[in-house]
Amino acid sequence: MERYIHKVRYYESDAMGITHHSNYIRFMEEARIDALDRAGYGFEKMEADGVSSPVVSLSVNYRRPTKFQDKISIELKALDLDSVKVRFAYKMYVGETLVCTAESTHAFYKNGRPLPLSQLYPELCEKLAAEQ
Amino acid sequence: MERYIHKVRYYESDAMGITHHSNYIRFMEEARIDALDRAGYGFEKMEADGVSSPVVSLSVNYRRPTKFQDKISIELKALDLDSVKVRFAYKMYVGETLVCTAESTHAFYKNGRPLPLSQLYPELCEKLAAEQ
Amino acid sequence: MERYIHKVRYYESDAMGITHHSNYIRFMEEARIDALDRAGYGFEKMEADGVSSPVVSLSVNYRRPTKFQDKISIELKALDLDSVKVRFAYKMYVGETLVCTAESTHAFYKNGRPLPLSQLYPELCEKLAAEQ
Amino acid sequence: MERYIHKVRYYESDAMGITHHSNYIRFMEEARIDALDRAGYGFEKMEADGVSSPVVSLSVNYRRPTKFQDKISIELKALDLDSVKVRFAYKMYVGETLVCTAESTHAFYKNGRPLPLSQLYPELCEKLAAEQ
Repeated sequence: MERYIHKVRYYESDAMGITHHSNYIRFMEEARIDALDRAGYGFEKMEADGVSSPVVSLSVNYRRPTKFQDKISIELKALDLDSVKVRFAYKMYVGETLVCTAESTHAFYKNGRPLPLSQLYPELCEKLAAEQ
Repeated sequence: MERYIHKVRYYESDAMGITHHSNYIRFMEEARIDALDRAGYGFEKMEADGVSSPVVSLSVNYRRPTKFQDKISIELKALDLDSVKVRFAYKMYVGETLVCTAESTHAFYKNGRPLPLSQLYPELCEKLAAEQ
Repeated sequence: MERYIHKVRYYESDAMGITHHSNYIRFMEEARIDALDRAGYGFEKMEADGVSSPVVSLSVNYRRPTKFQDKISIELKALDLDSVKVRFAYKMYVGETLVCTAESTHAFYKNGRPLPLSQLYPELCEKLAAEQ
Repeated sequence: MERYIHKVRYYESDAMGITHHSNYIRFMEEARIDALDRAGYGFEKMEADGVSSPVVSLSVNYRRPTKFQDKISIELKALDLDSVKVRFAYKMYVGETLVCTAESTHAFYKNGRPLPLSQLYPELCEKLAAEQ
């Protein structure tokens, strides 16, 4: 899948001069939204379809600090597309260095009922699977 | 009016080790919401009344830097209550030191029509006037 | 241990009208800093001692959405105080409802060397252990 | 001057479904840093030169709300380059619509002494002047 780039902003760095750890959760969201968007399944479409998608859980491993102006390139994989809990796995790099790995789990609700993504949007799942 | 206290969070400081200047706009909102809330005119009430209140403009003068753990105490004054544009004036202190002064202007809409706050909520305006 | 309270700010809610999930990582930091502070081992002391403490990893389970004005009360436990990786476990409540559970892992470095917290600050560890 | 583009993130929208007003101050910083960076006078250079540059004041006029996914294009002008207080003026557009205008004032300190930018970095000022 095409990597998403986040360039670290000045206001994302903290008093230690490094990217505050809470911001990586936002970079994960940016990469996820970007991938769904490029596949044609952006927020507007899901909203129009009556689909909501809460974050169920996440985990993050911080391997190397990053700092202002770093270009964090994020590799995203979608997993468990047949389950009611889709997982996204993230590898974040600055240059060749792996700086952070993470996972997030998401449910997809339509009319208040959780559905596997493969049932809700089979075409999206084919696209996601083909890319990785 | 009773002063509102914001204790600066670690994640609100930046790479220079001071409170990032964008956060003061958030402190202003906190102080404003707190004052309206204590007067009995919180977001829930306004929402229930069909009242929305966009920020029209703001200005901020940064006098002294603040940092992590500082207790910023905010003095708030409501002005121009008879106008369709209410002004709030802010003086922010750490101890006795004036660290920041600011103003923000707000419109109050009911059913899509801008109204003077004194017409919309006369009792609130009396409370605000009495306190300052 | 005394619970830490975070009242959700307007600017912490997102377009779905709920607290954006990235903010819980900031609430965890607030609770952690508050506990160390109350025990007399705040950032200033650690900095003066040449101690730095990066976040190594974290995991979060979102159980119920929260929203603007909710008072999130956070129960904190410190674990593995004899290891070079201290774990903090968090239970977050709104009223009696468990809304979020989380864990974070931290290293403590002195002069570039990782040390168990029980070796670095034995008194702090006794206080943390006594409270929970 | 080349316009800077900020695409509004999901986490930058608030419970009203619009971009939270505090974020525009961050977009202003992004545009300013980007312009200085492209001119070859980024943070690293200034830091290496012992130059610090605090924000002195700012003002913002919110004309139209923006929302998630909007591409805000920011036109920047540097003014008063011969003064110890440099002003930056911002015009923000979504498509052809002017959504926000703003100004910020900055001091430039070298070795604790405020200097006009034209004295500190004459070449930068020529570049800034030539572009607008």
